[in-house]
Amino acid sequence: MNYRMIGRLISFILIVEAVFMLPALILCLCDGNYTAAVAFAETVGVILVFSLLLRLWSRKAQKGFYAREGLICVGLSWIFLSLFGCLPFVFGREIPNFVDALFEIASGFSTTGASILDDVEALSRGMLLWRSTSHWLGGMGVLVFLLAVVPISGRNDGFTMHLLRAESPGPEVGKLVPRMKQTALILYLIYILITVLNFVALVIVKMPVFDAVCTAIGTAGTGGFGVLNTSMMSYSPAIQNVCTVFMFLFGINFGCYYLLICRQFKSVLKDEELHWYFGIAVVAIAVITISLRVHNFYPTLGETVRHAAFQVGSFMTTTGFSTTDFDLWPSIAKAILFLLMFLGACAGSTGGGFKLARMLLIAKIFSRNVKQLMYPQKVQVVRMNGRVVDEKVLSNTNAYLCAYASILAVSFLIVSLDEFSITTNLSAVVSCFNNIGPGFDAIGPTHCFSGYSALSKCVFIIDMLAGRLEIFPILVLFTRSAWVKR
Amino acid sequence: MNYRMIGRLISFILIVEAVFMLPALILCLCDGNYTAAVAFAETVGVILVFSLLLRLWSRKAQKGFYAREGLICVGLSWIFLSLFGCLPFVFGREIPNFVDALFEIASGFSTTGASILDDVEALSRGMLLWRSTSHWLGGMGVLVFLLAVVPISGRNDGFTMHLLRAESPGPEVGKLVPRMKQTALILYLIYILITVLNFVALVIVKMPVFDAVCTAIGTAGTGGFGVLNTSMMSYSPAIQNVCTVFMFLFGINFGCYYLLICRQFKSVLKDEELHWYFGIAVVAIAVITISLRVHNFYPTLGETVRHAAFQVGSFMTTTGFSTTDFDLWPSIAKAILFLLMFLGACAGSTGGGFKLARMLLIAKIFSRNVKQLMYPQKVQVVRMNGRVVDEKVLSNTNAYLCAYASILAVSFLIVSLDEFSITTNLSAVVSCFNNIGPGFDAIGPTHCFSGYSALSKCVFIIDMLAGRLEIFPILVLFTRSAWVKR
Repeated sequence: MNYRMIGRLISFILIVEAVFMLPALILCLCDGNYTAAVAFAETVGVILVFSLLLRLWSRKAQKGFYAREGLICVGLSWIFLSLFGCLPFVFGREIPNFVDALFEIASGFSTTGASILDDVEALSRGMLLWRSTSHWLGGMGVLVFLLAVVPISGRNDGFTMHLLRAESPGPEVGKLVPRMKQTALILYLIYILITVLNFVALVIVKMPVFDAVCTAIGTAGTGGFGVLNTSMMSYSPAIQNVCTVFMFLFGINFGCYYLLICRQFKSVLKDEELHWYFGIAVVAIAVITISLRVHNFYPTLGETVRHAAFQVGSFMTTTGFSTTDFDLWPSIAKAILFLLMFLGACAGSTGGGFKLARMLLIAKIFSRNVKQLMYPQKVQVVRMNGRVVDEKVLSNTNAYLCAYASILAVSFLIVSLDEFSITTNLSAVVSCFNNIGPGFDAIGPTHCFSGYSALSKCVFIIDMLAGRLEIFPILVLFTRSAWVKR
Repeated sequence: MNYRMIGRLISFILIVEAVFMLPALILCLCDGNYTAAVAFAETVGVILVFSLLLRLWSRKAQKGFYAREGLICVGLSWIFLSLFGCLPFVFGREIPNFVDALFEIASGFSTTGASILDDVEALSRGMLLWRSTSHWLGGMGVLVFLLAVVPISGRNDGFTMHLLRAESPGPEVGKLVPRMKQTALILYLIYILITVLNFVALVIVKMPVFDAVCTAIGTAGTGGFGVLNTSMMSYSPAIQNVCTVFMFLFGINFGCYYLLICRQFKSVLKDEELHWYFGIAVVAIAVITISLRVHNFYPTLGETVRHAAFQVGSFMTTTGFSTTDFDLWPSIAKAILFLLMFLGACAGSTGGGFKLARMLLIAKIFSRNVKQLMYPQKVQVVRMNGRVVDEKVLSNTNAYLCAYASILAVSFLIVSLDEFSITTNLSAVVSCFNNIGPGFDAIGPTHCFSGYSALSKCVFIIDMLAGRLEIFPILVLFTRSAWVKR
């Protein structure tokens, strides 16, 4: 294992984190909140010292960087990001408990948006901005950012590929352009562009500028931290609708945007995942709207559709904002939201969850096997967008499902030590693991995670990070072979 | 598709069903309950006429019987068994509603034990016996019985294999002896032997004879229909303990008993699935006992262990009896029971559910893929009990998991149209699909399924049969290729 090279990369990543803390620090100074400013300054100092020490230790890094180095590097770097990222909350005494602060920032980086804060509005603006910044940074991936922007000399494409593959969401990582580094750059440029568009749109519909910044970057990362205790409930319908549109936009595979830029409209229109993404959204919104109308939940059809579309968008893209207390909705509407929690957004988007592409692959594997059971002598292949999918990808997709189910089960068991209902515990685990945010019952949209024990919060932290990194980078850290020299 | 051959087999199966109704008919006559006796006699008549017509139609059956014929035959025969098996309830007006009666008997044949009856004790003894008989018949499989007992001339071993493979539980079907027919016979003899032992043991600990018959055959099939409204709550601790022991015995792979008879003790002791079966049971009982003691649920440690062991046995083996209202237990105890619902018993037992062997395989596939991610150049195989498992079995196991998850999701969605809680609906679907019986909340051990709509009951019926037949035989009935001539 090439520990020194991993250490060197982590030192780079921590510098990126420190740089992204600066806007919050500056905001604190502008607001005259010097306690918070000092907290950020102290954190930046701690990061710089640690990063320097790591750099010194890893001076003589050898070459040789393979798949497992990539996995471990990504897993470790996200853990370090969280450990240092929570320090401003602790130093500033705004979230004095370390586990709570760690939960909050892990929820931020993993773009979950689950909070342990009963009163979000009590946080200073600088802290709120940092919380939302962590969504933006976590959404597209810190390593992707590093690789896109910072020139790390002497590294070949394989090196970049191993890292990107470990951090990027979805069953397959496709190169948009021949070089991986440029792919990362293109993705980030698209990301920045849509974020800016989102901000502008929110300001046009008269959202306060600070709220618009936090909401735009929170939506971009499909995170879900709000700046108000009521999430998005108290904003105007126009703001909510803009939010709905951009949530759906950020849930689309960014590769599709690149194809649009290249004017390959046909490929985009033919994308199977995209068909299912919008198909499921439309059906879910329609059924929920009907059930809400039957039970007379909202006065007008327009309002019903608005709430239905917002909540469906929020759950499908794993953002986690809410415009209404959906925990009061009829059973069928809640059941749909519950199942959407598992689906997740498109692969290659900033959304979390299982990913639609993976679901599609699994459905196809399944239909292939049924056919093979009936006609054992015929060889059957699985196709996606017309192309035959490699058996290795299929096998990994299946392994992913196993890992997904096992982690859900184990987490649910540990979390059940706290005396909450089955619905609360189950939805909490599913929500954290799929990076959504709210759940049902005692962690519904009007509640938060503060009631859980420290042990449960630690489980949630691992779940959130494992969910964001698609399990394996975190999981390998628990295997013996990650730490044993061969 | 060889429809005539399938028809011919179904006509045989229905005769078997009619024969198994005779004990109940005789009991009705002994009890002087002529209404019920007439209901059974009418059903037997209907079955004979239908069977005769089917026989006439299928006189000129061609040869050629393959995997898909096997699947479709098994799926259809279980549906016909249920359709005719529910007629006594309807004809005798004891469960006048057809869907309710169908639910009850599908629950019987699939060894689920879920009931729509608020008052079980209102049923006549003949009907109670028939309900429990359906567990016994469903436990080991009707086709297995047919193949073991009835000489169907001119059929080769491949024919028998296709049928047994479709009806038998578990990821792999092993032959105990070179000929499939003898394997089936041996399995049934072991089954009968342990059932008789169970009956004798129950009578020794002073259970009334009729109750002992119904409990013994209900336990044998890991069904769970009781003859009292309180399930097993009002019986003596001795009876409950005997039940616990036999539930665990019927959850073991019957192949192990055959090995014991052949004095191959070492192979049995080395069986991986068996290790996990008892390992999980002991851990689950221990943790539940501790949590119950902490919350002071029962006066003595002995009573606590008795209830914990009974409920764990009942859930693991998917029997579904209960000795206490476990829905009142602490969250962690309920969480353990909830997860045990998914596990299921050993492959090759009469228990339902996902099956431990499959779980083990999936865990191994997963660990293999993690290793492969880290060392992509190495070829890794999966071993079970020391033997390398065929990649085809692994792929089918994965497909099974997909099918399992999809059916759970779809069923949960439809069932949620009824206004029950998420916990109720989810546990109802999981309970039916894994052939357990009770669930949590509104379908807890002191409640029943009567509150659900007819649509939901139909979903449960499909789930129960699909769960018992391990999905594919029922699923292929919904595919186009099952009905299209090629």
